[in-house]
Amino acid sequence: MELRNILILGAGRSASRLISYLVEQAKRYSWQVTVGDLSVEAAQRQVNGTLGKAIQFNIQNLEPSRMAIQQADVVISLLPAHFHIQVARLCLQEKKHLLTASYVSDEMKQLDTEARSQKLLFLNECGLDPGIDHMSAKQVMDRIKNQGGTLTSFESYTGGLIAPQSDPGNPWRYKFTWNPRNVVMAGQGTARFLQDGHYKYIPYQQLFNRTVSISVPGQGEFEGYANRDSLKYLETYGLHGIKTLVRGTLRFAGFCKTWNILVQLGCCDDTYEMDNVAGMTHRDFLDSFLPAQPGSVSEKVRSLFGLSNDSPELNRLEWSGFFSQEKVMLDTGTPAQITEHILNKKWHMIPGNQDYIVMWHRFRYTIDQQEKEVQAWLTATGEDAINTAMAKTVGLPLAIAAKLLLLQKVSVTGVIIPVVPDLYNPILKELSELGIALNEQQT
Amino acid sequence: MELRNILILGAGRSASRLISYLVEQAKRYSWQVTVGDLSVEAAQRQVNGTLGKAIQFNIQNLEPSRMAIQQADVVISLLPAHFHIQVARLCLQEKKHLLTASYVSDEMKQLDTEARSQKLLFLNECGLDPGIDHMSAKQVMDRIKNQGGTLTSFESYTGGLIAPQSDPGNPWRYKFTWNPRNVVMAGQGTARFLQDGHYKYIPYQQLFNRTVSISVPGQGEFEGYANRDSLKYLETYGLHGIKTLVRGTLRFAGFCKTWNILVQLGCCDDTYEMDNVAGMTHRDFLDSFLPAQPGSVSEKVRSLFGLSNDSPELNRLEWSGFFSQEKVMLDTGTPAQITEHILNKKWHMIPGNQDYIVMWHRFRYTIDQQEKEVQAWLTATGEDAINTAMAKTVGLPLAIAAKLLLLQKVSVTGVIIPVVPDLYNPILKELSELGIALNEQQT
Repeated sequence: MELRNILILGAGRSASRLISYLVEQAKRYSWQVTVGDLSVEAAQRQVNGTLGKAIQFNIQNLEPSRMAIQQADVVISLLPAHFHIQVARLCLQEKKHLLTASYVSDEMKQLDTEARSQKLLFLNECGLDPGIDHMSAKQVMDRIKNQGGTLTSFESYTGGLIAPQSDPGNPWRYKFTWNPRNVVMAGQGTARFLQDGHYKYIPYQQLFNRTVSISVPGQGEFEGYANRDSLKYLETYGLHGIKTLVRGTLRFAGFCKTWNILVQLGCCDDTYEMDNVAGMTHRDFLDSFLPAQPGSVSEKVRSLFGLSNDSPELNRLEWSGFFSQEKVMLDTGTPAQITEHILNKKWHMIPGNQDYIVMWHRFRYTIDQQEKEVQAWLTATGEDAINTAMAKTVGLPLAIAAKLLLLQKVSVTGVIIPVVPDLYNPILKELSELGIALNEQQT
Repeated sequence: MELRNILILGAGRSASRLISYLVEQAKRYSWQVTVGDLSVEAAQRQVNGTLGKAIQFNIQNLEPSRMAIQQADVVISLLPAHFHIQVARLCLQEKKHLLTASYVSDEMKQLDTEARSQKLLFLNECGLDPGIDHMSAKQVMDRIKNQGGTLTSFESYTGGLIAPQSDPGNPWRYKFTWNPRNVVMAGQGTARFLQDGHYKYIPYQQLFNRTVSISVPGQGEFEGYANRDSLKYLETYGLHGIKTLVRGTLRFAGFCKTWNILVQLGCCDDTYEMDNVAGMTHRDFLDSFLPAQPGSVSEKVRSLFGLSNDSPELNRLEWSGFFSQEKVMLDTGTPAQITEHILNKKWHMIPGNQDYIVMWHRFRYTIDQQEKEVQAWLTATGEDAINTAMAKTVGLPLAIAAKLLLLQKVSVTGVIIPVVPDLYNPILKELSELGIALNEQQT
């Protein structure tokens, strides 16, 4: 059966590069690209001047959603992750392939047998992180294995940052380039990983205090904190018996020590509504978490955390306006919501800003009784505040996977992630041709 | 209608003083005391040699529970707090009064109108804390008000400790004298209170680091950490407009700094099961939360928390066996469960141990343009590891309330707590005759 109709669900900021790639391919192969969004105008903007079609799409209206999916051969869902399962059920009923950049949920996993029996591909985790991280890591791991080596350690960190040269006054060297709420809530829960053969656990209250220094060749100094559950990658990558396995998030050096102040004070707590939010200033907000003692808010932060007067931590908090008398301008909110709102005043992308993605892996392995190490890293810089590196690195792997599928070059089926050579080899090859490639350094 | 049948549900350790008081009163007034417990033997032990009756009682068997309650006029529930609501529903249906020492749940509150319309008393929070704290605080507050004073500040801390002279080698000066699980989980969530007219919030990660020093006249030096939600007492005590309102938990000075190490490391986390628990030693357990770096476990704790070699914090952890090679002896467990298990090896009460309760209130108020302060405090020491101060101070207020009710001396009805003079005055008076009285110091 020929496949030629592509339905892309979601026309947000992250969709632009994915759509531009696919409409270009569509011209060449005579495919039909349809973009569906809650806002038909948003969808229209994304296909303007192309042969692509825009439709209104609301997954909560079951029958219209089914009809849109019936017209497609391959569905790409960029909807919020919790909607994927509803899309997947319709895809199963209508016998359509599905691609997403999101983590496989337990519910999604349960569709595996049925998808397989219908010869359908439900490919997930095919964006940047998860996505390029899986593919690039598994490619190196498989190469080491094929050479007869035994992997003893795998560490992997990725961060979505701001290119410092595009935002020189920003002492955090960070802005919201992805879901701000997830940034504020990051790290809640306990991080679990393997180190030197031991299970290790770091709770939220220690996470930003227990960072590792990461020097990415040619890119400068970063720091990493562990992600929630690295142990699930034992299964994902088939790494049982490995001594060290840790995945984490990467920030420019210095970020975490300041972020830790917000964490320690309780500013990222999303479990209760604060009192007296209307009329609250930024400074009042921070003061709510500080002891009632004489002194200014910045002096109290300084004394509580043992900082010097001109410390970079105080400077970052000051730059973000936490000591200012500016009104928060919310009527209600949890600490996390208010923190997000205050941070967003300075951390939203403005014209001229370019985002900056850094992914870094380190593999240690033994081969012929020798210990070896290879580092692999990728960086990507956005063109501007709209055409971001994030949109490109999340969208292109999905788009390339869709192309391979339409060209009948994918034989795997079921609910899978791109850790098989038949997927990662051609996707990484084309990403490299598009300028998204990992560098390697062997020692 | 004459009331003469008392049903006490729960015959655990905390029930002994309550039962001995009521069987004694029962002789005088010809009442019938029945004690129900899952274990009829446990109930039997509590009524041995008295005219009291023991029955098997399982709240999860609805009809037998209903029949037992039908026989009673007044029910006292010492069951785990989440069972009270089922007891309360049966009491409503069978038109019986109910007394508990537990916090009023939202579900319980909803029974207020119906209880009132049936002229039933559902008295809760009538133990020690909550209980004596409410009564003693409200008595002083009402007195200040009646004198024409305006309360500006109320601080109140209570702790269930160990009498140091009965356990001289214990550097924590603390043992489990109440539910160990609650001790390990204490403070999770965010503490909210009012200080100098400002709402203040302390998250778990700062709680044991942000203690206040409390000097109880004649009793020595203590430290207090804020309880979860002090703000609900604005309503409970009718304190709207007050500037400072904080309730907390009291420990001997030095406890919290050590406990904070366990909190910071994540040892009190109850949200996930640890890996490889079988075969784990105490030292392995602690090491799971420490960085993988050279040095012994105690050296790593020392360096992470900036402690000196002979610090009291290391000494307490060492005394509790956290650095030992002793096996934990559990097959599975969350960090909180394993911490409780390790602590319990040294913190369970042994013959000769006496528990020690300290309650301390400080009231600040203005009267005739003058600022005044009054401190009120209570201490109680257990007789031995069985006849504890905790059992006495929790059980007697309930028992006295039951007596007043049976003697028809209580006219209030509905779901209430003992903050009304008709309850707190006679209960505090009799407690005082039984040796449980607050001291006061005015300044």
